[in-house]
This record gives sequence, C-alpha cells and structure tokens, in this order.
Amino acid sequence: MPSSVNLADVARLAGVSPATASRALSDHPHVAPSTRERVWRVARELEYVVSPEASRLAGGATGRVAVVVPHLSRWYFGAVLEGLEAGLRTAGLDLLLYRVGDAADRAAFFTELPARRKVDAVVLVGLAVDDEERGRLERIGVQIVAAGAQVAPHPSVRIDDHVAGRQAVDHLVHLGHKRIAMIAAYDPEQRGAHPAGRTSAYFAALADAGLPVDEELVRTVGWGADEGAEAMGTLLGRSAPPTAVYAHSDEVALGALRTLRRAGLRVPDDVSVIGVDDHPLAALTDLSTVGQPAGEVGTIAGRMVVAGLRGEAFEAPVLVPTRLVVRGSTGPPRPDRALGRRRR
Amino acid sequence: MPSSVNLADVARLAGVSPATASRALSDHPHVAPSTRERVWRVARELEYVVSPEASRLAGGATGRVAVVVPHLSRWYFGAVLEGLEAGLRTAGLDLLLYRVGDAADRAAFFTELPARRKVDAVVLVGLAVDDEERGRLERIGVQIVAAGAQVAPHPSVRIDDHVAGRQAVDHLVHLGHKRIAMIAAYDPEQRGAHPAGRTSAYFAALADAGLPVDEELVRTVGWGADEGAEAMGTLLGRSAPPTAVYAHSDEVALGALRTLRRAGLRVPDDVSVIGVDDHPLAALTDLSTVGQPAGEVGTIAGRMVVAGLRGEAFEAPVLVPTRLVVRGSTGPPRPDRALGRRRR
Repeated sequence: MPSSVNLADVARLAGVSPATASRALSDHPHVAPSTRERVWRVARELEYVVSPEASRLAGGATGRVAVVVPHLSRWYFGAVLEGLEAGLRTAGLDLLLYRVGDAADRAAFFTELPARRKVDAVVLVGLAVDDEERGRLERIGVQIVAAGAQVAPHPSVRIDDHVAGRQAVDHLVHLGHKRIAMIAAYDPEQRGAHPAGRTSAYFAALADAGLPVDEELVRTVGWGADEGAEAMGTLLGRSAPPTAVYAHSDEVALGALRTLRRAGLRVPDDVSVIGVDDHPLAALTDLSTVGQPAGEVGTIAGRMVVAGLRGEAFEAPVLVPTRLVVRGSTGPPRPDRALGRRRR
Repeated sequence: MPSSVNLADVARLAGVSPATASRALSDHPHVAPSTRERVWRVARELEYVVSPEASRLAGGATGRVAVVVPHLSRWYFGAVLEGLEAGLRTAGLDLLLYRVGDAADRAAFFTELPARRKVDAVVLVGLAVDDEERGRLERIGVQIVAAGAQVAPHPSVRIDDHVAGRQAVDHLVHLGHKRIAMIAAYDPEQRGAHPAGRTSAYFAALADAGLPVDEELVRTVGWGADEGAEAMGTLLGRSAPPTAVYAHSDEVALGALRTLRRAGLRVPDDVSVIGVDDHPLAALTDLSTVGQPAGEVGTIAGRMVVAGLRGEAFEAPVLVPTRLVVRGSTGPPRPDRALGRRRR
C-alpha cells in the first residue's frame, strides 16, 4: 500500500530521524550525499510521495521564506518588511525577497514561480492575487500568508480599510464639513487593485451624515504624490470646490497639499486634508491621518509563518487596529465660506 | 598531484559539464542525485578540494546573494534594494535579505554569519565594517560588494560625499549667505558611522569662500527628522542664528523645516534650508537638495555581483554623480537681515 507510506517509515528504514529524512527529500544542502542517497533509495522503494505536509512536520525543509512585494521604495512596504524580517530572523528563518513590480514581473513570477522548491512558505505583502495565481502558489505545496491583503483561505493580517476610511471621513463630518472630496487610489500595475473598503467608507459616512454624494468630488488616481497633486488641481477647478479632502494615502494627501500651497490656499482654513498611513513625514508636515501599524502587520505575518511551520493553524484573518491622528491639516470649515457655498 | 586537480578534470571524468560539476559539489538542489553522487565520487578519487574560486567560475554555487542592510523603512535603503533586486533577478539570482539594525544584531550577524555556505556573494548596503568584520566575511570565501560605502579592496559603488556636500554648501555661499549652519548626522547604532565627506565639504567650502567657522553653528545629531527638528531649535537659540542651514540628509532637513514653521519663520526669506538625497518628499515639500541616484547605486551593485560571479573584476570603486536640485527652500539672505546680523 504505497499510499499509506509516511515519512516516519522512510526515516526508520533509512536509519535516520524524520527531520533528516525530510531534509534529504527536499534537497537540503546540509545533508551528507550518502545519507541523501540512502533516503531517496528507501523512498523510491516504498514509492513514497513527498508531500508538503511531511516537510512541514519537520519544521520546514529549507529554512527559507519567500516574501513577495510589489514595491520596495515606498514606506509601507519597507515598514512591513522590517517587522517581518525581524520575526523570521528570530525564528532562524532566512528571507528570500522577490519584487513583482509591473504586469510583466507579475506574469513571470506566477508562471515561473522562482520560489518553487526553495522555500517553506510564501508571504504576499500588499498583493491581491487572483484565483489562478493562488492555485499556482498552492500547488507548490508551501504555506501561504498574506500581509496587508486577504488571500482566503490562508492566514492573513491587515487593517480594516472600511474602518480606517470611516475614521478619516467621520472626522471631517464631525468638524462640520459638507462638501468632502475623496481622492481614491488604485494600482494600475496590479490590475487596478484598490482598497475597496476605503472607498465604501466614504459613501457610508456621507450617507450616515445625510450628506448628498457629488460625483464631481470623487477622483480616482494612481497611488503617489504627483497623482494626488493633479487630482487636487481638478477638484479646485470644480464649480463648487470641496472644503475638505479625504485621500486614500498620506503620499496622495501630501501631493494634494502641494497643489493647495501653490494655489495660495491655506490649510486648514480654506481646505482641510486627511490621509491614511501615518507615514513618518505626515508628522513632519503636520498632516492629519489615520495611522496603520505597518511594522506590526509584518511582525504578525512573521508569527503566522512560524506557527504554520510548527503545524499550528491561524483560523481567522487578523485585523490590526488603526487610529485617527489629528494634526494641523484638518479644522472646521470657515463659516462664511461654507455658507457661501451653500447659497450658490 | 592532487593539488593540481581542477574542476574541469572532475567534470570530464564524471562526464558532465564544469557548471554541473560545480553545482553538484556545492549541493545545488537542481542536480539529479545520481549525477551528484558520480561527481562526488570522482572528486573524492582525485582528492579534489572544492574552492570558492572554482564555484565562482561556474557562475556561483547557490544562486543566492545575501544583501545586508542597517534599515528597511528608510527611503534610501528601499531605493537601493529596488535597483539591486531587479539586477539580481534578471541574472537569475535570488536575494536573501538580512537586516542588522542595532549593535546586538550586528554582533550576531558577524559572529554567526548566517549567510555562510548559503550564498555566492554578500552585498553590504550603507554599512561601514571594521577590519575584523571584513575578515570574517572574507573567510566565508564569497564575493563581497559594498553599496553606499567602501569596503576596500572589494568592489564598491557610492556617491562622493565630499562633492555632494560641496554642491550643497557652495549653493548657499553663491546665494550670498555668510552665516551657514551645518546639521551633521551620524548613526549611533553603527558605532557613530557618518559621512565624513559631507562634513569636510562644509569646512572646505567656508574656507574657500573666506568665511570664518563658528562652532556654534555646527550640530551633530542622529539621522532622522526629530533630531533635525531639535538641532534647528538649538541653532535658533544662538546669539547670532544662521541665515542658511545645510543638513546631511533630506529627512534631517525636513525636521529643521518643521521647527522653522513652528517658530513662525519663513523659508527661504528668513532662513534657507538644503538637504542631501532628493527623497521623493523633497519635491513635495519644495526642499532644495543634492540628489543621489540610490536606485542606480543598487543597479550597479547588482552588476558588480554578476560580473564577479563570472570571474570578471571591478578594479576601481565606482562613484555615481550627484546633482544640485534648487527648489523653493533656498534663496538669497534678506539684505537688511544679513546687515543686522553683521552689526551686532
């Protein structure tokens, strides 16, 4: 009954520990060639099929974890990576880094799967994968963890984008703003991946406040400061410009601030601006924001990997809390101005 | 004569290519067990000694490169890593990432050398290593490349810090400033590592302009915006404050700008500020700076690794050019103000 043969049988007949058998079968470099040959011979005789589970029971075959990111020079990804690297290192695991930037990188990565056979786990950071890509990853037979996104049914850790968006927009509503714009962001290189919850939060907050939606006040642009700057220019050209702007990220918000400064408008007297992230430079530029603990997302993703390699399960997705950080870029609308707008 | 046996002999007698022989001897995972055994048997019969050079001639034994960084969430390191990752990936090499943040990390890394036997090359990014650390790395027998620092006699790529500093300070001198402060930066976690050239440039530029050095106008602080903000506060408290400030980095300069804004001073009318880096947010905040091509530093370091693994040598250190980027944070001193200062 070949199908009932397990790793322990192979190990026993080869005269080695299950951990050594697992390492030998996964071509781990620290196994003597003679041991490897003996284990493989026994495995072939028993028609043993190497299963991912078997490798995992031995605590991971390669000691390496692939971390896949779409960007490296943006703050969020560096911060997640910092938390993740520390956690993996503490557990004695090495981190193999793969960046899949544009569509070509992405196609190459998911077709060729360079991480195949080289790692015990793959951590996807801020990457939304489709079913086919997920299937390819799953067929490598390694553990999958998602950070900053959800890749069901695998363990994941992220913020609740809807809650974060509500914290930002509700703050503007509570200050008394009636004409609130949204600069939504998406990633054209990731087939338009966007934080849907940050968008739905805007519409829900306006509805709860009894405020009408004005499609003229919604702009969707690529992540990035230049895009935020351009969107702000378009919003200022509207017949009835906004008194407050909710941007999907701090970098987008900082771009909007640049346009306001160049237009000679005062923040927050003329226009309030809030972002999402709590980028280190938000504090420097006095930008109100909704802070997300990117380092902690990385730390928790690292714990999920280590737990998974030990055979422990993380059932539910983990949501880390965000918090409103009020700084100098948000304030109440000027009464005369708000009145003037309403009378038009 | 066992000592004269080379890899080509082993390959020929084992009936494989030198590349395959090299991979087999270094336990590369993509070699069939039977091939590996045959190569090892021939090697043992010939008493062939595996040398790092032999592996390198075949293009590297592991297909992996260790990249060692002191920080991950700072722009510079992310940008270098982005250029480096792309270059290594194109060459089919995997990137193992190690962060050595504080003194304890550093001691652990250089004592335990987790990269030992796992990689073909080590790239040190922005890390100044002492002779003992360098010796330990060299004894692993892998190729060493330095990016953003020099680790003689190994290949290195970086900017010329003295030239960069001159570009910044000369700009302030040409604008007519006489009281120019320097906020110098160092890394307390890296045993005080600091860009000596950026400091020497300040004193050389003042001397060339016939300006006296006022030690009250020099502050040395840790890298970072908060440190820059605090240093600016100290400088404003001097009996004769500066009309211009040269900061060792944009993040330090952005901290200085925050203090000036909070003090109600106008930039550049009251005080000019210039940094070094051309951080993406420098453009957003209209900060004049000396731009350094961090991505290109990473790209060139990647090329050095690939060339080294092919047995090609990079003799001289590569210096990539920096450039002055004049934005709105620098301008001439106000005549009345400069005069007022001089009369005190």
